[in-house]
Parts: sequence; C-alpha cells; structure tokens
Amino acid sequence: MAINSRHCLSKIFQPITAVSKTANIGHKDVTSKSQRLMLELGIIQQANPGSFHFLPLGIKSLNKLKKIVDDEMCKVGGQRVMFPSLINTKLWENSGRLENAGPELFQLKDRHDHSYVLSPTHEEAASELISSVSPLSYKQFPLRLYQITSKFRDEMKPRFGLMRGREFLMKDMYTFDIDAQSAKRTYEEICESYNKIFERIGVGFVKVLGTSGNIGGSLSHEFHFKADIGEDKVLFCNGCNYSANLELCKSHTCPKCGVEKSVDISNCIEVGHTFLLGDKYSKPLKARFLSKSGKPEDLQMGCYGLGLSRILAASVEVLSSEQEMRWPDTLAPYNVIIVPPKAGSKEEKSTKDVAEKLYTKIEDHIPELKDNVLLDDRLFLTIGRRHLDARRVGYRYAIVINQRASENVPLFELNDIKTNVQVYLDENQLYQYIKENTLL
Amino acid sequence: MAINSRHCLSKIFQPITAVSKTANIGHKDVTSKSQRLMLELGIIQQANPGSFHFLPLGIKSLNKLKKIVDDEMCKVGGQRVMFPSLINTKLWENSGRLENAGPELFQLKDRHDHSYVLSPTHEEAASELISSVSPLSYKQFPLRLYQITSKFRDEMKPRFGLMRGREFLMKDMYTFDIDAQSAKRTYEEICESYNKIFERIGVGFVKVLGTSGNIGGSLSHEFHFKADIGEDKVLFCNGCNYSANLELCKSHTCPKCGVEKSVDISNCIEVGHTFLLGDKYSKPLKARFLSKSGKPEDLQMGCYGLGLSRILAASVEVLSSEQEMRWPDTLAPYNVIIVPPKAGSKEEKSTKDVAEKLYTKIEDHIPELKDNVLLDDRLFLTIGRRHLDARRVGYRYAIVINQRASENVPLFELNDIKTNVQVYLDENQLYQYIKENTLL
Repeated sequence: MAINSRHCLSKIFQPITAVSKTANIGHKDVTSKSQRLMLELGIIQQANPGSFHFLPLGIKSLNKLKKIVDDEMCKVGGQRVMFPSLINTKLWENSGRLENAGPELFQLKDRHDHSYVLSPTHEEAASELISSVSPLSYKQFPLRLYQITSKFRDEMKPRFGLMRGREFLMKDMYTFDIDAQSAKRTYEEICESYNKIFERIGVGFVKVLGTSGNIGGSLSHEFHFKADIGEDKVLFCNGCNYSANLELCKSHTCPKCGVEKSVDISNCIEVGHTFLLGDKYSKPLKARFLSKSGKPEDLQMGCYGLGLSRILAASVEVLSSEQEMRWPDTLAPYNVIIVPPKAGSKEEKSTKDVAEKLYTKIEDHIPELKDNVLLDDRLFLTIGRRHLDARRVGYRYAIVINQRASENVPLFELNDIKTNVQVYLDENQLYQYIKENTLL
Repeated sequence: MAINSRHCLSKIFQPITAVSKTANIGHKDVTSKSQRLMLELGIIQQANPGSFHFLPLGIKSLNKLKKIVDDEMCKVGGQRVMFPSLINTKLWENSGRLENAGPELFQLKDRHDHSYVLSPTHEEAASELISSVSPLSYKQFPLRLYQITSKFRDEMKPRFGLMRGREFLMKDMYTFDIDAQSAKRTYEEICESYNKIFERIGVGFVKVLGTSGNIGGSLSHEFHFKADIGEDKVLFCNGCNYSANLELCKSHTCPKCGVEKSVDISNCIEVGHTFLLGDKYSKPLKARFLSKSGKPEDLQMGCYGLGLSRILAASVEVLSSEQEMRWPDTLAPYNVIIVPPKAGSKEEKSTKDVAEKLYTKIEDHIPELKDNVLLDDRLFLTIGRRHLDARRVGYRYAIVINQRASENVPLFELNDIKTNVQVYLDENQLYQYIKENTLL
C-alpha cells in the first residue's frame, strides 16, 4: 500500500528555520506574527524586501483560495482572462493616473526606449482591451472579466510579509455595463459575491464604506479582517450600523447618526476593495458600446480587487497564536496529518500498515479530503515531537497511531488542533467526527 | 433546463475581427498563421509588441495545458512553488550571467535605486532559495521545484504572436541532486516526463540534442514541433537516428555517422528545453547540501523549461489551415459545440429543448467532457453560418440539431471537424462515437 510520496511529509520541501538565524536579505524586520510563522515554518521564504518565494505548502494553500475565488467569479458570470504585466505608459497618461502615481509605480524602458508600467492594477489595460474591439453591441453586456496574476507596487516600507509586499497575487475583476443603473446592479452582485467568498473562507470579515483613493469612482467598499496590526482604522457605529474606513469620517463621531458614544474604532487589514468607476477610465480610453439607437457611448465600469496572497497571510494573522500557526479549514495546506509510531517502537510492530490503510480509507470516505491528508513519515522522530510539529503548522486534525490502534476494535487518537479536543475514536467515528467538524 | 450561461456562446467574450481592420499597437506585422487566427477568432488580443491579452477561450485552453503539465510534474515528484518576477540583479552578477545578458534582459531600479531583473528564467532565484536554507541534509534530495509563471524577455523583434513574445507563460523546473550520477538520473526522468507531456498533448514532436546557449551546462535537449515558420533548424539523420539542433553540427553532415545523404533538415519550433547544469549556478550562489560525512558540498542542478503560451500557439500553427483554426483535442477550449435550429424555423418548434437536454446528457455520459460542451445560442443566425463558425474556431465536434432530431428515433447530425466526417447518429451512437474518437 504505497502512499504517493508527494503526500509524505519527509518529501515535502518545507525548510523549517528560526527566523532570527536566517541570514537573508531584508527580513530582519519581522513585523507580524503571520510573517514570522510563515517564514519559520517553510510556507514562504524571503527573496527581497517585500518579495517572497511561495514554497510548496504556500502554493497548496494559495491554490485552494484561487479555486474558491474562481468558482464564485464564475457564478456571477466572470470570465477569466490574463492581461500583460507590462503596460504601455501612454495608457496611464491617457487615464490621467500617471501624474499622481508617484514612486510606488514601478516603471521601466524597453530596448527601444519605450516606457512601460509594471502594473499594480489594470483599469487602463482592461479599458484599452475593450476599446481595441469597440464598439461592441449593447447586447454583449454586462461583461465581467477577471484575472488572477502577480501585481507590483514599489512600497516605501514593505512590511508584514505577504500583507504589504512589492510583488503580490491579486484577483482583479473589471466590469462593463451600458448604463449607470446596470453598473450599480453589477456592483451589488459582485459585492455579494465577495461576501460569499469571505464566508466560504471562514475568517470573520466586515464590509464597510471605503475610500476611492487613486483608483477613483463614485462608490467604494472595503472588506476587512479585524487585527491589531491592521493598517486601516475602521469606524463601526453601534447606534445605526454604519461602518466605514475612518478616513471617510471627519471625527470619531458616526457621520450618519451623529452619535459619538456608540462608536467603535478597530484596526483592520483590507483584504478586498470594490469600486464603482463610472466612465473615469472608459471615457479617456474610449471603451465604448453601440447603443440600441446605433450611437457609440461610453461604458460604465466597476473594478473589484481581492489580495489573494494578503488574504492568506491575514487569515494566518487572525487565527494564529504567537507560537502556533492556524488556518481556516478551507485554506490549510492539508487538513489531516497521520502520525504513525516511531521506527523501532513496539507500537510500530503491532500497527504495521495501519497508517497507510487509514490514509487511503479517509480519502475514500471523505472525498473532499482528497490530496488533503498528509502522512508524517519522519519515523525517526517520536510521536510527541511530530504531534508538536503538527500543532505548530496548524493542520486541523492530527491522527496519532499508537498502541490502541492494535486493539480488537482499533482506536485512533484524534487531536482536533483547532478546538483542543483529544478523543479516541474507532474508524467510523473518526470519519464522522471529521465530516461533521470540518468547514470546507 | 437551464444551461449555465458561461457555456453559451453568446455570453463568451470572443471578439471576432478581421486582423487588418483592428487599429491596434504593433500587430500590423502578422507573421504567422496561428497568430492571425488566434487574433481574428478572439483567443488573444494584442496589447503591445510581443505582448497579448489572453481572452476567455485562450485561458480555457491554457488551463488545460497547465493541468497536463501539473499532473506530469507531480508524477515525477515535482513540487510547485512560485518565485518572484523581480530578481535582485546581484544574483545575476554572482552567477556571471549579467555581463552576457545583453538588451534582452529587462532591467529596472526601485525607489531606493536598487537594481532588479525582470526575470526570463530563474536559475539564480532557485539557487538562492536553496542557498538561503542551506545546508540541507543529503537525505532531502533529490529536490524538484517547478513553477508556472509569466516570464519576460525584451526581444529585438517579437513575432509569431505568442511564439516569440516579450511576456510569456513558462513552466520551469529546477532540480537539485547530491552528485552527478543522480543528477543525470533526474535529467533522464524529467526528459521522459516531457515525452509524456507532449504525447498527451497529441501534437507530433521530436526530441533532439540541444544547444546550451546562455543557460549553460553539460547536456541539453530540445523538444520541437516541425513547422515551416520554425526558427530553429534541426538535423535528422536517417542513417543512425541522430538528431540535433543544426547549430551543433558543423555542416549538413551527420556528426555521428558522417553520412551526408541520409540527412534531413527541418524548420522547427522549440517548445521545450532541458539542461543538465552541474554546479554552474549552485557553486557561485552557494546552493549546498551536507554530505553523509557532514561536509558541505555544491548541489548538482538541472533546469527544464516548457513554453506554455508558445505550445498553445505552436499547436495551432501545426494543425490549422490558413482559414480554419485547429487544436489538439486536449487543448481545444471546448470539444463539442451544439448548434440548435434558427429561431422561428419550423425545426425550432419540433425540436424544443432537444439541444438543452442533449447538452446535459453528453456531460452525464462522458464525464471527461464536463465544461467542454458549448451551446451556440446565437439563434438569430442560420445553422449553416454557425456551423461555419464552429469549423473556423476548430471545435472538434459540431452537433447540429435539425429536422431529423424530431424523428421517432431522434437522429443528430454529427460533424467531426477534424476528420471531415458527417454522420447522422442516434443518441447512444453519438456518445459512442465521441468516446471512441476523442483523444483526451
């Protein structure tokens, strides 16, 4: 009974280091818990200030997030595309954004001395794409295009690991509608889709009125995770349920009901942002459609961003303790780790093949866990040590195979690392427990 | 019976244009058939010279290719990672590659005047990653890391659409072994994996001795598709089966058996390239392991590239006619298109719901076709016109619903666009035909 070695812990590239020891470029300043844990536990590795290698466990987690996002984007008619990263600087001139862009914008020249922007966001590219095939008939709208690609921003002070990096993974959607009313409807649908995405991820979030910043537009919302290290301050009014980025509020008073006492201010990490853009980009970049009467008109746009690498780190930030990483079940690189006895122990002899059989059977009984069960085959280590490692990395369930797995009715020690429950369960109880408690 | 609208042709963003009409930047020089067809038929759209938007059908095709590649990389123990695109220029100085890099290398400075390379390939980054966690124990090798990311190269003359672009999607793997012998074994395994990938893709390919170019190393192979527009010339010896990039041969004579007459020279498109690197990068960049005796030693590396966006274009180039796009079954954005009768026709009345039912049933009977069946719901067009469109885009099967679908035993007009077969089949024969003839 051979387990595919890619699900054996000893074969996974997960360099575990104490961060203070690594003599690497630029991450002497560990500014957040999630950054330190993800570096120490081999989820990411620092490459340069604000730039990281995603290691295999990090990619596995990221792929789960991408799948949720892809799935929900499809449900609202999103069509996946991919825009280039290098954007002709002229487009940014035409949209009027270049002059205010400042040093956060990476710029470069090609061999012919033509200027390019290493794009942090693609409103111009999306508008230009539609413009290049314009005018499309009004019948072809609404149009909702999205991509999941690396974005670039030359942060003055990159910090918090993946949360404020210079190169990061973003899902960005650009929508096109034929009038303001349909654009508003689209905006509401996509915001609702974002609600669903964050509900599926399973980390508590808030949606509040947002600032439009340098993207612009008439209406904006931000999606936040509450966290001490959050760089945004968000005002919540207990009186009237109003909530907004504090930048929108003149004082610590609720701008809607005017009551100060009932207001809470929280530090938050922005993980998503939506913008109703109007014709801010479509007009200068000529993204048009042909109306019923045959007249070319400017399209009404929206744009919608989810910081995928940031969501990963922010989830870990919210859920982890200083010493132990925690993930939402939906994003954990693996959900279950099986810990067989140490090589040479008497338990090892009496439980031969039990771990391998259990491995296969879990995947059979709970198909959602396919590729989500890991075998800790580092048999030179004690069960105790490996159990501790499992706690640190934060797999939801550590199933320890010990002496009791050789009883007439074999019992397994199930450690629910999220809830700190340890129980002995027979095989069917084990499947039942996992099925009932896992939030996938 | 509602079909998910994302599989309805009218809802797919596929701007169809005559290329000569599009007033866009830089693609006035259409230099290949595949480039023109993919632009005209809304698979890609030009953004800048050598840089393209991938439109929804292009992404769908690309995702199929990624899946094949991911799958085969996993089988040989590949672990997926993601390196940053911006690489510290110092690493390229250390490896010695910067001085010979020339203007093909995009370079830029950040706000602190630090220099970065917009990486065309990641030997340095991979070595530095291993170095930053070195020394790992010899037990942790072989190590095989790969990524699928955008790469950048400032081509003097970008051409042939996706085939020689300035921004392209590549799968690159970097392998690390503890001695030359295991590195050679790894090299052979990955080459064999490449054979399998190309066999699965289903476009005829050749594997030949390759040039090491500016990547270096002691042994190299290239994988090619034969095509008139190919920029590489490859020598095939019928006498002794030797084959190599012509650059490796001093003349048009086989360098192995010395016979000139039996030699063929073909134009080829390079779609994959493998390199046995030795310590070329690991030595200067200090990617080391701890040997059994506890001594740090340089790792032996290999690197392996597949040009994914190029494979897509090259497949279309090889299989298409001047007027009609063709795909391998494995990479076609959709495999089946259902063409119901025109709105208002008498066939429409007598075949109500037939198309929708057939759509659902095909996916039920042939699970491999899930998400691969398209409904041409542009009912304002005649069957004939939509059938022609299906031929142009090159879906393998166009199933036309006409009068005979209302017979006692309903018959469907199956057009096998690849083989130019047109037959009337009942439902079960239809499934049978598709199952037997599709190469997925």
